[in-house]
Amino acid sequence: MTVSVNDLSVAAARARENEMDVKALLFDTFGSVVDWRGSIIDEGKAWGKAKGLVVDWARFADRWRSGYMPAMDRVRKGELPWTKLDDLHRMLLEELLKEFKIEGLSEVEKDHWNRVWHRLKPWRDSVPGLTRLKNKYTIAPCSNGNVALLNDMAKYSGLPWDLILGAELAMHYKPDREAYLTSVNLIGLKPAEVMMCACHLGDLEAARALGLRTGFIYRPHEYGDVSKADAAKLGDFDVVSEDMLDLAFKMAA
Amino acid sequence: MTVSVNDLSVAAARARENEMDVKALLFDTFGSVVDWRGSIIDEGKAWGKAKGLVVDWARFADRWRSGYMPAMDRVRKGELPWTKLDDLHRMLLEELLKEFKIEGLSEVEKDHWNRVWHRLKPWRDSVPGLTRLKNKYTIAPCSNGNVALLNDMAKYSGLPWDLILGAELAMHYKPDREAYLTSVNLIGLKPAEVMMCACHLGDLEAARALGLRTGFIYRPHEYGDVSKADAAKLGDFDVVSEDMLDLAFKMAA
Repeated sequence: MTVSVNDLSVAAARARENEMDVKALLFDTFGSVVDWRGSIIDEGKAWGKAKGLVVDWARFADRWRSGYMPAMDRVRKGELPWTKLDDLHRMLLEELLKEFKIEGLSEVEKDHWNRVWHRLKPWRDSVPGLTRLKNKYTIAPCSNGNVALLNDMAKYSGLPWDLILGAELAMHYKPDREAYLTSVNLIGLKPAEVMMCACHLGDLEAARALGLRTGFIYRPHEYGDVSKADAAKLGDFDVVSEDMLDLAFKMAA
Repeated sequence: MTVSVNDLSVAAARARENEMDVKALLFDTFGSVVDWRGSIIDEGKAWGKAKGLVVDWARFADRWRSGYMPAMDRVRKGELPWTKLDDLHRMLLEELLKEFKIEGLSEVEKDHWNRVWHRLKPWRDSVPGLTRLKNKYTIAPCSNGNVALLNDMAKYSGLPWDLILGAELAMHYKPDREAYLTSVNLIGLKPAEVMMCACHLGDLEAARALGLRTGFIYRPHEYGDVSKADAAKLGDFDVVSEDMLDLAFKMAA
């Protein structure tokens, strides 16, 4: 009887998973589960065509996203009171509309466009991978997106979350420790029983420092240019996976 | 062409539902979605048989539940700091074990038995009714149960919640206004866009006073004796339903 390489890797993955005793997986969403950049570009193009706008939508998406960290930092430093992500996105949008010289939008149009973040589309492997993981683990976002945004996104894209956790419930944005620990506490588990899963090294490093397990998901196309994506090699985290289906496989789900 | 009574009631239900513009349904769980009393009796009997205990499990379940309101009142009055329901249940369990002269349990056994509330079984119509409602609406518990309890219950019994809301996120027990309004706020809706659904009149009356829509679900066997169950007649609430499938029908889901 011969043992194939594949059998060995299955055995190794299952042994590793048993050793960990993980009961829940928390997920970063923007980039890790959904393709924010591609979704904004696609919707922007369709909307721009209907409105007769000439806009570089890739640049628009990148500029919107680049305002995200500084806006959260203003909350973190107390320059702004707790402000949910929808409202930070809207503040940034007002500036972007000026920068891109998009004028004359109604309040309804602005609100609809701001909610493009509620309509982000999952990477092709996200729903099948999460569906497999849900059979074995509790799965929830632990995202900086607010609860309504995450719920709308799940309804829109069929993300099969068990429940929604994240920054808004802690009133702290990741990577503040409260965002992770509030999520872990609400599901009644110890940090070591929970795995934070993300395509961003900083998110995983913050979770690891608090005792959570970590699962890397490679998302080479998050920023368009593959060289801009975070990468990890085997051993950098408890699990290093190529996509959500690979994560499910490695977690024996 | 003849129009049947059934066609007319479908038309009436749909007209009523359209008029309301409800986008999310929040559910009381203990009694409304799951049969806490029957579940505790069943598990108690099995456990008692294995342990050689002679206990009136119906009385045990009723006594446990009867301690629930006074315990929450202690939190409400500030005699206790915010205490999640798992911990209130455990305080009550310690008293009940003395009252029923059940001795010699290990910490693991006590914890397991306290978590019987995480393993409550749904009424027969709950999962099919909620599954239909989920296609059209956001559905979430708005329960006094803590998040971990509600998540475990959903995983155990297949309740298809979109997300989990309720008392713990507000740190206020129903019928405190914060429990309802925090839930409504987190899903980004107005009170009139949300329907509170329950088999208890007080829960619905509290929600209605805050501007939520209300859906009554009749649960004649919650307390064993049918005469103890709350009843409602057509017109008492926005929707008055016989069970979860009837609620789905009346909400055109």
